[in-house]
Amino acid sequence: MKQFPKPTVEQFFRTYAITNFTVSSDEQKLLFSSNLNGKVNVWGMDLPDTFPYLFAHNDESISFLKFDPKGRWRYVLAGYDKDGDENHQIYALPPTGGLPQPLVTGDAEEKYFFAHLSDDGNRLYYMTSEGNPSFLNARVRNLEDDTDTLLNEGETSPTNLAAVSDDEQAFVYVRSFANTYVTGFVKIGEEINYLTPDPEKVHVVFDPVFTDENTIYFVTDYESEYSYVAKYEIKEKAFSSVFSIEGESVETLKWHKESNSFYLATEKGVVDVLYHYDLESDKIETLTTPIDVIDKLQVTKSGNVYLLGRSATVPPNIFKTTTNGSDWEQLTNNGVLGVNSEDMVEPDVVSYKSFDGMEIEGLLFKALPENDNGYTIFWPHGGPQASERKMFRSMFQCFLNRGYTIFAPNFRGSTGYGSSFVKLVEQDWGEGPRLDCVAGIEWLFENNHADKDKLFLVGGSYGGYMALLLHGRHPEYFKAVVDIFGPSDLFTFVNSVPPHWKPIMDRWLGDPERDKERFVKDSPVTYLDGMKKPMLVIQGAKDPRVVKEESDQIVAKLEKEGRDVEYLVLEDEGHGFSKKENEINVYSRMLEFLEKHQ
Amino acid sequence: MKQFPKPTVEQFFRTYAITNFTVSSDEQKLLFSSNLNGKVNVWGMDLPDTFPYLFAHNDESISFLKFDPKGRWRYVLAGYDKDGDENHQIYALPPTGGLPQPLVTGDAEEKYFFAHLSDDGNRLYYMTSEGNPSFLNARVRNLEDDTDTLLNEGETSPTNLAAVSDDEQAFVYVRSFANTYVTGFVKIGEEINYLTPDPEKVHVVFDPVFTDENTIYFVTDYESEYSYVAKYEIKEKAFSSVFSIEGESVETLKWHKESNSFYLATEKGVVDVLYHYDLESDKIETLTTPIDVIDKLQVTKSGNVYLLGRSATVPPNIFKTTTNGSDWEQLTNNGVLGVNSEDMVEPDVVSYKSFDGMEIEGLLFKALPENDNGYTIFWPHGGPQASERKMFRSMFQCFLNRGYTIFAPNFRGSTGYGSSFVKLVEQDWGEGPRLDCVAGIEWLFENNHADKDKLFLVGGSYGGYMALLLHGRHPEYFKAVVDIFGPSDLFTFVNSVPPHWKPIMDRWLGDPERDKERFVKDSPVTYLDGMKKPMLVIQGAKDPRVVKEESDQIVAKLEKEGRDVEYLVLEDEGHGFSKKENEINVYSRMLEFLEKHQ
Repeated sequence: MKQFPKPTVEQFFRTYAITNFTVSSDEQKLLFSSNLNGKVNVWGMDLPDTFPYLFAHNDESISFLKFDPKGRWRYVLAGYDKDGDENHQIYALPPTGGLPQPLVTGDAEEKYFFAHLSDDGNRLYYMTSEGNPSFLNARVRNLEDDTDTLLNEGETSPTNLAAVSDDEQAFVYVRSFANTYVTGFVKIGEEINYLTPDPEKVHVVFDPVFTDENTIYFVTDYESEYSYVAKYEIKEKAFSSVFSIEGESVETLKWHKESNSFYLATEKGVVDVLYHYDLESDKIETLTTPIDVIDKLQVTKSGNVYLLGRSATVPPNIFKTTTNGSDWEQLTNNGVLGVNSEDMVEPDVVSYKSFDGMEIEGLLFKALPENDNGYTIFWPHGGPQASERKMFRSMFQCFLNRGYTIFAPNFRGSTGYGSSFVKLVEQDWGEGPRLDCVAGIEWLFENNHADKDKLFLVGGSYGGYMALLLHGRHPEYFKAVVDIFGPSDLFTFVNSVPPHWKPIMDRWLGDPERDKERFVKDSPVTYLDGMKKPMLVIQGAKDPRVVKEESDQIVAKLEKEGRDVEYLVLEDEGHGFSKKENEINVYSRMLEFLEKHQ
Repeated sequence: MKQFPKPTVEQFFRTYAITNFTVSSDEQKLLFSSNLNGKVNVWGMDLPDTFPYLFAHNDESISFLKFDPKGRWRYVLAGYDKDGDENHQIYALPPTGGLPQPLVTGDAEEKYFFAHLSDDGNRLYYMTSEGNPSFLNARVRNLEDDTDTLLNEGETSPTNLAAVSDDEQAFVYVRSFANTYVTGFVKIGEEINYLTPDPEKVHVVFDPVFTDENTIYFVTDYESEYSYVAKYEIKEKAFSSVFSIEGESVETLKWHKESNSFYLATEKGVVDVLYHYDLESDKIETLTTPIDVIDKLQVTKSGNVYLLGRSATVPPNIFKTTTNGSDWEQLTNNGVLGVNSEDMVEPDVVSYKSFDGMEIEGLLFKALPENDNGYTIFWPHGGPQASERKMFRSMFQCFLNRGYTIFAPNFRGSTGYGSSFVKLVEQDWGEGPRLDCVAGIEWLFENNHADKDKLFLVGGSYGGYMALLLHGRHPEYFKAVVDIFGPSDLFTFVNSVPPHWKPIMDRWLGDPERDKERFVKDSPVTYLDGMKKPMLVIQGAKDPRVVKEESDQIVAKLEKEGRDVEYLVLEDEGHGFSKKENEINVYSRMLEFLEKHQ
């Protein structure tokens, strides 16, 4: 009998995304959103049975899922956008499943974000762009009589409702000035008090929770390199630090009322760690997890922990523990078609010194010797503050299987390495991070992880921007370049982002008037002359973050110069690929492109 | 909060088909074929975990699934066709899953059917149209050295290999002259012996099994109205009846060597019954089942029974019992999106006297009072010998939910009512069965199950033929008619079926020369003048059973006459709808058509 051939490109993309989940209070029903059947839909499990059934059909991305509290089963709430446009609106699903019905919706370009549901399930708190596109309004919809009331008008910067007290009299809002600058305040009536002593200092506040009417716990990095758990007492107007974990940033905080304790996940470089913190005893214990990166965490009344997570060789799956992490049951079974985890590549965590002596960590995925084709792909991640972590990417494992080694550096600006480090990309998109990339490339060469004439450059979003910029300024390093929806011109980019992003652009990227010189210096279009290597540009037509014009203009300019540039536009996609066949199409095309230019 | 609307058409079609399954000998892995993700693919379960994962991706229908025996895990075998053309060919799947690789394949129009796999998994016995399109050849492929040997050349009529003895020296073949006339013989060397005393008598032989080198058990209706279990002893050349069940036809026979017993399913009118028969004690016991119709049965070494089945309100699901039917575990969870079984309609089993006094059974699905729109759909089933049974049809439950009552008579020729009854359609396609339909319609009117001016006619395959014929000859009964791939002209139909069908056409339908007058009388095209009611014709372009020309010609003729006829052709479908979106499209269109003509 003949041997079976090696896995194809397609096989690696026949995994699916699991993007969200929620468990009912009685733990009898679990809902999750997944493109299991090709496009994203809501699936159900009647636990302990894990065979999933279609719970709601809409073929669109889902921003949240929320059961009617207390098991009353009148509805399930869900947020849907349209073709990845990120204008999520709020729908109700029949409690037995079915088709989504509009609940809090409006014009196609408006956004309605879920904020909070009252304990009795009758009042839905939400954020909306309607009437306040830049700063957002908080409103409350009474689901029993359909009355709708304005709660807070966002000012200064996008202002989101983040917590509501049990008596629905106190509200915590967070106001975003940048990914690294988010203040939090509690509003009772018209009185406002900040949760941290000095809102003028740059810091973040998130995941606030009322543990009683007077006490708010939250996560902050106020006056610290790493975010920690703090508390604010309303009557006393008193801020205090509660606990921190050395060298790790708290990323998710879940209150478990029944045991007077918190479950929390921290970011520690390229992995996440799960902890249980008992408020009474002030004791913290580490819980083992079956995966390296935690995407979502839910703790039920019973104290069972459900998590959605992944590792470099494990696609997103949902797990459950009833033993505080001693053992985990895997509820879903999402793998790569015909490929075991053992045949995939676990990355090495490496570090190197950059131009100014700063230590940069990176993930080096070495192609297995039997697959190695001698070529290396340099991958600047997106965000720019979303560091590359130990999480499954079909693209990585597919390209590794075809023999490419992949290097992904966490250049300055990446999260997971402290507050100062993450701020280093702000108002410096094109200099420090770029030089970290250049140093990373030199390190690859010096350590024989890449051949000088066998290096490709591939990046998406900010990574696409970096790919364009590196191509323009350092073309000598690369055989060919792939840009996936990367901004090409900072002047046009800064004006094309969604309205509620605009207030944060100043701190994050800069001001096109004030920083004109830098914008010119850091815009890829400035370096068209350098872009002489073959290039593939990929863009979603409905991308709301990096609009299609960003790619159109650079492609048009390069074509005018007679350069070798291929342009692939996906008509029904936004900033990412929500549809399986599009994804397979894009990455097959990308692989062909790389093979052509070997 | 607003009420949720009633379920839509789409919801009823958001079930999926489960068309086949197999369990590995260690019962650790279950594979099933399903269009769970939109098109038919093979899915796996690592039992006892039931969360399914994609095992093989090909987006095509699957005719069989077979594990490498004895858990050696070198391959899984599967049969695939192309876009429903029914030219199934044999592929090997990697044991860990992946993409199918051609194993026993040939030109696109050739067929390669699985027949038997040797105990050691090294020799694959198969049937092929290659070199013998009408009668088929049996061949054996040695999977170790790829040699391929002719075993038997089919003669007279299509001749299929149906059983192989353990020592691979004795072979049972079945030769089909019609659905009701299939002889069986054992071939050792060049010697042939029939399993039944007189092969000239009309009867069927199927599901032969060697219980030892000398003994063949099988199912037959030789000299009986209902099929029963018989045995043939090779040395003695002795046929004997083993056991029968009063008024029920044995349909499936599974040998369980370890307990020296048989598991079998019988057809009892509109339902199936499962039995366990102990050879030693000659004792038969009835096993309860969780569903009414059994599609597939597998008994493992341990004696656990797996079955694929469905009921009127339960779509196909796989069940398992470890307790001989005392309780069943449901392994899959295939339901209707957002609709419980209780909100669907269980049919009444009714009967009425036809024109000649013959008793005709039928299924009457009454729309629930809150849904009832006063209209009734008359549904002549296909086959013509495939009786309408208590099995889930999305179309039925969807149309019932929209308020239509549905009546499906098991006119003469339907299985489940004895051998004489089933033969009554042979060489009489257009007379007896048609008059049974007419009597059924009159019965509906007399018993107030239908209003005289509120009756629709819908049928597929032979049911489509019957819809055309009833339309042409009895147009006064109907408001409008839907024909789904029904033959319109018996002269062209008899010549357009696949080659291996041709030998059986004479007995089944007749000879166009000899029976010219009857062919004219029974061809719908003869009654074009009568077809004055609005009609919707639906056809799969790749249908190999009822070719597209059958629909093309009637539509062209009616259009020429200026009749109200709509024609919907599905380019990528055969005789049935294998693709979910096509299915939803077809039935939405059909519902619109019915609503338009109310």
